[in-house]
Parts: sequence; C-alpha cells; structure tokens
Amino acid sequence: MHSGRRIITLLTDFGTADGYVGEVKGVLLSGAPDATVVDITHDIPAQDVDSARLVVARVWRRFPSGTIHIVVVDPGVGSSRAALAVEADGRCLIGPDNGVLSPALLTAGARAAQLGVPAGASATFHGRDVFAPAAVSLATGARVDDLGPEMPSPIVRRTPEAIRLADGRVQGEVIAIDRFGNAITNIVGLRGGALELEGTSLALRRIYADVDVGEPIAVVGSSGFIEVAVRSGSAAARFGLVRGAPVIFRALDTAE
Amino acid sequence: MHSGRRIITLLTDFGTADGYVGEVKGVLLSGAPDATVVDITHDIPAQDVDSARLVVARVWRRFPSGTIHIVVVDPGVGSSRAALAVEADGRCLIGPDNGVLSPALLTAGARAAQLGVPAGASATFHGRDVFAPAAVSLATGARVDDLGPEMPSPIVRRTPEAIRLADGRVQGEVIAIDRFGNAITNIVGLRGGALELEGTSLALRRIYADVDVGEPIAVVGSSGFIEVAVRSGSAAARFGLVRGAPVIFRALDTAE
Amino acid sequence: MHSGRRIITLLTDFGTADGYVGEVKGVLLSGAPDATVVDITHDIPAQDVDSARLVVARVWRRFPSGTIHIVVVDPGVGSSRAALAVEADGRCLIGPDNGVLSPALLTAGARAAQLGVPAGASATFHGRDVFAPAAVSLATGARVDDLGPEMPSPIVRRTPEAIRLADGRVQGEVIAIDRFGNAITNIVGLRGGALELEGTSLALRRIYADVDVGEPIAVVGSSGFIEVAVRSGSAAARFGLVRGAPVIFRALDTAE
Repeated sequence: MHSGRRIITLLTDFGTADGYVGEVKGVLLSGAPDATVVDITHDIPAQDVDSARLVVARVWRRFPSGTIHIVVVDPGVGSSRAALAVEADGRCLIGPDNGVLSPALLTAGARAAQLGVPAGASATFHGRDVFAPAAVSLATGARVDDLGPEMPSPIVRRTPEAIRLADGRVQGEVIAIDRFGNAITNIVGLRGGALELEGTSLALRRIYADVDVGEPIAVVGSSGFIEVAVRSGSAAARFGLVRGAPVIFRALDTAE
Repeated sequence: MHSGRRIITLLTDFGTADGYVGEVKGVLLSGAPDATVVDITHDIPAQDVDSARLVVARVWRRFPSGTIHIVVVDPGVGSSRAALAVEADGRCLIGPDNGVLSPALLTAGARAAQLGVPAGASATFHGRDVFAPAAVSLATGARVDDLGPEMPSPIVRRTPEAIRLADGRVQGEVIAIDRFGNAITNIVGLRGGALELEGTSLALRRIYADVDVGEPIAVVGSSGFIEVAVRSGSAAARFGLVRGAPVIFRALDTAE
Repeated sequence: MHSGRRIITLLTDFGTADGYVGEVKGVLLSGAPDATVVDITHDIPAQDVDSARLVVARVWRRFPSGTIHIVVVDPGVGSSRAALAVEADGRCLIGPDNGVLSPALLTAGARAAQLGVPAGASATFHGRDVFAPAAVSLATGARVDDLGPEMPSPIVRRTPEAIRLADGRVQGEVIAIDRFGNAITNIVGLRGGALELEGTSLALRRIYADVDVGEPIAVVGSSGFIEVAVRSGSAAARFGLVRGAPVIFRALDTAE
C-alpha cells in the first residue's frame, strides 16, 4: 500500500545532547532500515504538552500520506496513561494519551489503538521502548488496528476558541510565542480591523514591511491566525505578552 | 541529468521548536518524496543575514553537483524584495534577494531567476509557500531558467576586505565568533607574523595545542582566515571581541 | 557485505550555527552519495569529552551492524593526539584518540587503526578533513584495517565505578545531568533500597508517577543506572547536584 520508503518523523522535548534521540533513531533504523527518519524538533520546552500539540497541528498533514509521526512529550511516562497509535487522514501518529495527538484525533474518521508495553521496557523511556517499536511495526507492514485494542475515548485538548462579544468584537488570547517574538493568537484572520492591546490599537496589515523597523503590527500569520509582531524586533518583549494573555479584535464593520 | 536522489539542504533562522521547519520538510517530502533533506542549521540568529551568508559560503560547494540549497533568513518576507533561484557551479540555491546567496552569485557563470509568488501564499512564510515549492520543482526536473525571468542584478554583499596599510601591516576585522569563542577575521592566512590585538601580540601558530590551556593563539582557520582562539577557552570573552572589531596583522617581513 | 545504504551518524560539540556540521555533511554526501547521514547531536558542551563518551555509550550499539559513527569532540585537534577508526561488534567508530570512543574500545574483539592526516588537511578541523573522509572510505568499501596501522593501545576512559562500602552500602556519584534535570548516577539499578542524599532518603520507586508533582524520586533509568528525579521538576536544581556529586545507595537487605 505504501510502497517505497516510509517517512518517520520525530517530535520530542528531549533535546539532543543527552543521547535519548540517538537511541530512538537507532531503534528505528535497526528495525526499519529503509525508513526516512525526519527531525521535526527536539526543542519543545520540557514536558510542554500544549506547545507540542500546536506543532503537531502545524505539521502532521503537511507530510505525505503514509507518514508515521512519533510525538513524545510525556510527563506521565510509565504511569497508567495509555500509549496510542492513531490513524487519521492516511497518516499515523504515535505518542502518549495526554492530548498531544489531538489535532489528528479530532479529524473525521480518526481511529486510535492502545499500545501494549513490551516486557522489559524501561519505565522512564517509552520513546525508545514503546513508541519507536510501534513505528517500526507500522513501517514494516502493520496497521494501526494490529497494534492493540481500539481506544474508545482518547484524551483530546483543544486550542481555546476566541469568542464573539455582545458588541461584535472578538475576544481571544495568545496561544504561542515563536522564536521571533511574534505572539500568535487564536483569532482567525479577518479582513480589516484592528487588534486592541493594552491601550494600543494595531490595524491589521498584510506584511511586516508595511511598517517601519521597530514598529508593531498585526498580521494574519501562516496558520491563518492573527499574530502580533514587531518588525525586526520582538512583540512579546515589547508588549509583555505571554501565553494566555488576552487580546481583542475589532473588525472594521464594528469599529466606531 | 541528476539521476538518483536529489539533495535538498535547509539553512534557516527558524529554530525548530515552533514547527516552521517541520512544515517546510513536509512540503518538500510531499512534492519530492525521493529527495534527501539535509539540515545545515536552523540556529542562525534571528534575521542575521550576514551570519547566514558566511555559512552559505562555507557549505554550498562542499555538497555534490545537483544539490539544491534552501536559505531562508528573510527579514523582508512579503515585501517587494524578490525571491531568487540561483544556479552556480552545478548547484542550485533558493532564497530571498537580500544578499544571503552572495557566495554563489559572485561565482563565475552564476545565473539568477526571479521566483513568482504562488496564489494563496502566506505573506509571512515564503519558506513554506515560495522557496520549498521552488525546490520541489528543481528536484523533479525543472531548471532554474524555468522558474522565472532572469534577475539581472541581484543584491550581493561582500565580506569586508582586509586592507594593506602604508607600513605593510594588514588591517582587518572580526567577521564571526563561533561556538567555541574563536574570533574569525577577514585576514587571509599568511605564513609567519603576528596578530596585534589591543596591546597583545599573538604570533601565528599552527595548532591550538601549540600553546598551553588557557593561553591565546592566532591560527589559520579551516576557511583560510586567521582566527584568534584561546586553548580550551573563549577568545571572544578574553579579549572582548565582537563582530566588526578591528585587528591588525604584521607579517614577518614587516615586523621590526 | 553491507549492501544497501550505509548509515553514518554524527556526534559533535560543533553546534550547527557556524556551518561546520554543514561542511562535514557536504563531504560525506559528496563522497558517499547513497549514505544515510543521521544527526545524533551537535550540542555536546564544547570540548566535553566525558559527556560525549556517555552519549556514545548510549547509542553506538542501538544502530544496526554496518553503521559508521563519527564522533568529534576534540580539544586536542591538530596536536600529536592520534585519530582513530575502531571496529567493534560490527559497527565502525571514527574520532580522536582521547577516550571518547571508549565504549567501543572496551568491547571484546575491538580493533583500532590509526588514521593518517591527508596532505592539506586543516590543522583545526579534522572533522571535515580527516574523520569525514575516513567515513567515506568505510562507506564505499574500505575496512578499518585498510585505513591505517593498528593502534595498539588507544586511550580509554571508564565511567567511575560505584564501590561497596564495609557496611554494605554502595557509594557512587552523579555522572550526568540530563535536560530534564534528572541526575544520573553510576549505581546500577538494584531491586529495593533507598538513595541517600544529603539528609534525604529516597526509596527506589518504579516510575515518576509514583510520587506527586514536585516530589523527588529515585528510579532505575533507561540505561540501568539509578537516577534522581523530581516529578515535573529538576532534581539537579532541587538538590544542587552536579557531575561528580557523591551519592549513597542502601539496599533493602542492608537497611536497618
């Protein structure tokens, strides 16, 4: 069905310096020597399930059908939290049942199986001993259904939704700060309007270059959400924005 | 012409934690599933075009003919700055027209084409929506000429050249500080002489081990430029060196 | 013998931002275009041979037979320290003769050859000019014996061994702090007992979830050594643990 090289991606909070990622890659390439192993990131902040979930949302469907995504941000490793394999829209995802796989689980037709823990598996390193072997099985011909019993109600977490206020404005929040200091909100891009930010009002513009260097701007980012940026600077630093900070969008037709 | 797997390299300032690199890799492997995607770095300081340009200079010709290099350090994304595909010495390079591709553009016989922006492309993420698709086109048979009209005068930036003073000494500057705290100058390695550094004179030696641990040294680095190092320490910290700091080299035959 | 794609792994302290890793990858893929190049890490602390050695220990045998591991943490580059190729248990390892390859060298049947330095090699970048070309030779058919004369007594470093005290307790030390703040000791996991830590006694438990968030715990880690952790926190910060810090394990049968 998926002839040719299977792609296996890795998304973890391991960093690389301790060798844990190296161990996982060794297990993958020992079991599935023809697979193409792709690093998504190993720099998720330690145990930050929500950050990882947002990255999963960005990337999982960008890869071709047949791709196997391993996602290991797993504060509950070794506890009674289940281990999952998910099939959704032609891709497979493997990881802990803590909500990190939600973007796939929320897709129509998604199925989840509960992975067993092999005898002798380390209680602290399921990435190496549970998730990587499951990926090897999938890459060498198994299907998600073969890996364990159906998981009827896996945990899902949703990005908080922006809400429409009585006066027509939209209230949302910052859901991520990226490396450039851009603050990404949960407000879906709308044509025209302004983002209200502690006394400042930022008209929605198209591109960073619409303002001078050092000036703030609101734009529709690459995921479709409104972002606050400072051209060649950090909006997070400029406005003291952190995850969860409230923001308001006033669309043109509601503006006074 | 380039049978077999095409190599596509990635050189960005994205970091990996936000998922942007993952999105780019997904686009590449969806469009060119047989390509070999290679990370050069994603840790260029944010929007530091000059640092990226020096890394391009180090690496682009080390890869085999047929390699496609994607370089995205792009403060002007979405503005009127052009997007380029360059062919030089058998390699292709793709990136913004801001000087970051200069090492290839300055090569004899280089050609540059201006890339169009596909309908629906994000105004803030050309790495995913402009550069990666162009790389896919090249990896699947297109030539640089096919991707757009010739770009007659792309922007080039040059590493500042060291100058010979009236007394025969050579005046240069620090162009980079590397992870080890080595300060790399723009003075091409010369046999014999000394680097003058705020009161200190460092005779040019061959290897770090020519001095004791903790002692400073000047050597010809791996790119042919003179570097200042401290054995098992940081020359940048020791001498307060930053990019742009002036340095003087006195060749043996001009030494008093 | 090793038909198909050869795997070449990279383990360095280069970081990626300066382009050195990119240069090495270019050399590898120019000489061995069918090889699969795998990043283990480039984030070993600069010149930290012991950290690198522990990562080598974790990963080298996780990869399949035929894998070529390049290990470059090399404070003595360019000095009289030898350059090595090692064959052990079907894998090859290439790196400086400073103990970093000890986990393979200490394996029964290991053989080591001393690599020559090619004419024109940079005195400061053997990763690119000595080790990568040796890996290319191995990937394209050479054997370790072909690369140079036998190295009769390469340098080996051993992880310090925990010792059994007169009263039956085991005295060890912290050998690594990982990204999660877990302190990994050199005491091999024993069933039952407690780790004594400056006034605190931590009973050996099975999994992090056996304690509440914020509470400390001792567990047998994924390499078989006892680790100190704080659930969803940092044991290193909590107890001020650094590499070399002493720890005592009291097994159940010696406990009062």
